Amino acid sequence: MTTASELLVSIDDIGVDRARGGFSRHVFDHAEQELREWFTEQARSRGLQVTTDGNANLWAWWGEPGTDAVVTGSHLDSVPGGGAFDGPLGVVSALAALDLLRAEGFTPRRPLAVAVFAEEEGGRFGVPCLGSRLLAGTIDPDRARNLRDPDGVSFAEAMRSAGMAPERAGRDDVALDRIGHFVELHVEQGRGLIDLHRPVGVASSILSHGRWRFRFSGQGNHAGATPITDRRDPMLPASRLVLAAREAAFGTESARATAGRLVPTPGGTNVIASTVDVWLDVRSPADAATRGLVDDLAGQADGYASEEGCRVEVTEESYADTVHFDAGLREELASLLDDAPMLPTGAGHDAGILAAHKPTAMLFVRNPTGVSHAPEEHAESEDCDTGVVALARTLEHLAS
Amino acid sequence: MTTASELLVSIDDIGVDRARGGFSRHVFDHAEQELREWFTEQARSRGLQVTTDGNANLWAWWGEPGTDAVVTGSHLDSVPGGGAFDGPLGVVSALAALDLLRAEGFTPRRPLAVAVFAEEEGGRFGVPCLGSRLLAGTIDPDRARNLRDPDGVSFAEAMRSAGMAPERAGRDDVALDRIGHFVELHVEQGRGLIDLHRPVGVASSILSHGRWRFRFSGQGNHAGATPITDRRDPMLPASRLVLAAREAAFGTESARATAGRLVPTPGGTNVIASTVDVWLDVRSPADAATRGLVDDLAGQADGYASEEGCRVEVTEESYADTVHFDAGLREELASLLDDAPMLPTGAGHDAGILAAHKPTAMLFVRNPTGVSHAPEEHAESEDCDTGVVALARTLEHLAS
Repeated sequence: MTTASELLVSIDDIGVDRARGGFSRHVFDHAEQELREWFTEQARSRGLQVTTDGNANLWAWWGEPGTDAVVTGSHLDSVPGGGAFDGPLGVVSALAALDLLRAEGFTPRRPLAVAVFAEEEGGRFGVPCLGSRLLAGTIDPDRARNLRDPDGVSFAEAMRSAGMAPERAGRDDVALDRIGHFVELHVEQGRGLIDLHRPVGVASSILSHGRWRFRFSGQGNHAGATPITDRRDPMLPASRLVLAAREAAFGTESARATAGRLVPTPGGTNVIASTVDVWLDVRSPADAATRGLVDDLAGQADGYASEEGCRVEVTEESYADTVHFDAGLREELASLLDDAPMLPTGAGHDAGILAAHKPTAMLFVRNPTGVSHAPEEHAESEDCDTGVVALARTLEHLAS
Repeated sequence: MTTASELLVSIDDIGVDRARGGFSRHVFDHAEQELREWFTEQARSRGLQVTTDGNANLWAWWGEPGTDAVVTGSHLDSVPGGGAFDGPLGVVSALAALDLLRAEGFTPRRPLAVAVFAEEEGGRFGVPCLGSRLLAGTIDPDRARNLRDPDGVSFAEAMRSAGMAPERAGRDDVALDRIGHFVELHVEQGRGLIDLHRPVGVASSILSHGRWRFRFSGQGNHAGATPITDRRDPMLPASRLVLAAREAAFGTESARATAGRLVPTPGGTNVIASTVDVWLDVRSPADAATRGLVDDLAGQADGYASEEGCRVEVTEESYADTVHFDAGLREELASLLDDAPMLPTGAGHDAGILAAHKPTAMLFVRNPTGVSHAPEEHAESEDCDTGVVALARTLEHLAS
């Protein structure tokens, strides 16, 4: 039987990012298409029926899809320069858990499926969990079709290039109705399990989170010929916003605010920028606090912009309320899994989207670096094996 | 006879940048190659002999190259999203001035040439005036060959792709010895001539200037799962540097400091950056003040980096001392040109590089917007015509 770690090794040459380190696998790019083919082949070799829904999500079925399936899975796309585990660990663990159940001679009473959700990171089109949001109807399909990547390609165009029909995108009640329970296994993206000395945990909640683009506009001009007093340089208010976001997050209980993407246009060394786009990723345990923090920052950004003779425009690109996973289910799993610890997370997941519609749970596997969304992200083989067993026990419990 | 404005119109479909506005024409890219072909054709149609030197600069000769030529010209490359005049105006005005002199029946006593210098903006390989610096021997040719564009292509590789021999790059005494005088006409990149109500001026000096890359390194991580207190986010010290640079320039006589290019890596919205590169363009009328300002900022950057648990590394990418144009020649030209006003500039030029080797002068043509390195850059047709006449009178004066 192939282990989860061995399955990960089999894809570790796909989407390697030599410039940034780690992996860059974005929806419908060459690497992500290769991963889709790899998954389809892996699933078919296990006798699973593979289909792609209208929202570019993959489904591999053990048994006939009915109305009460136990679905597990995660995603195969990455952030730019991301780690090897965020996403793929949940997919390979699902395959390995099915192998284990079969080797044990388990016969499920309910259909089982492995799902791979599209564009979970929002690394290409900006909205995270795009595949699950479309499926669940929490994003307008017209808005999704018109999302553009940094090269100006729309999601609809990219779907079409990948041989899919963008007009099919949108809430999919047939696919939703098939799901009885959803369980996602994921590498932990923090230090909770390290500190607790445990290999596997159960998710309790996800912070409310969203992405806001702040576009500062000023006057592009010559960096040498324009006196300091004549400038309207949008880089100034943009930099003040980055610092203000840090201060605001410090001042708000368990909040996080990050500017990881900042793009000056035109971006020449000897050119005062005409516009600067800053994307703020803001999260906190309280929906109102997250929104309040962004509102405060928008007000401050407006002041910073005015002081430099610039303007600022704020666009909400995505937002999700705090998720509390199904209380009964998570207690049930924690007790099933040797009193596994219960952990909150600051990271968004497809499970967080589906939690509003179906009883949903997440299992975390220990990450000895505590680092994620970076090449240092890791999980030891033995912990991955423990994760597969925990997932197998969970699926067996639910499908019996 | 074709006017300078008409010649500019004939190239206004080359290198149009639909994303940024204006033009993006970078050394050896498709647009710049097209402009080289266009220039060669224009020069040949006037019976000029066109050659390319070992540093990718073009020369069009009226008369046999000797040791005492009057050379005029400028560059055809642009900053990203630049205007139509910065560079090309000097080239088309040179062609139009030759047309005018011939129509007037002028027979030069000395050879005349139109030069087009490569990579004046440093828009692709980072070092401005690369063609004239190589020619004059003010940059090590090995360093130049190893400069890399943002896609990792080296200058040597780009030269080779364009059919040139990178091993020939470097100080070119034959080409230098041919130059008796160099005169560059350029669109003004400030408001001096607007305020003086004059269409044409003569350059007095160029601010000392350079480019320094500040690379801040921290720890890439997950934007949602990493508590604020556990971060080493290089975007924080980078933002503080941008603000400190503005403050420092305010505090230094006639200084300018600009961060127009800033690149976080990996650059994902939900990812704390692992490194942030900020390029500072710093200029002032006093060499020591420019270097002092950069040294101060490097010290401050070090402190900002430490406070965030990051590191910073500063690299000087280019530097040029203050240039005072040949005092006799500039007085001579001002008096020849109807008491044209004398203007300093904050912008670097190939004329600034050659001024260390040969008597060199610059003419400026009024820019009614005062804006440069941006699509708003402009010069009225009548002012361009006045510029051509002034250049023709200058060439006639020097070549008689």
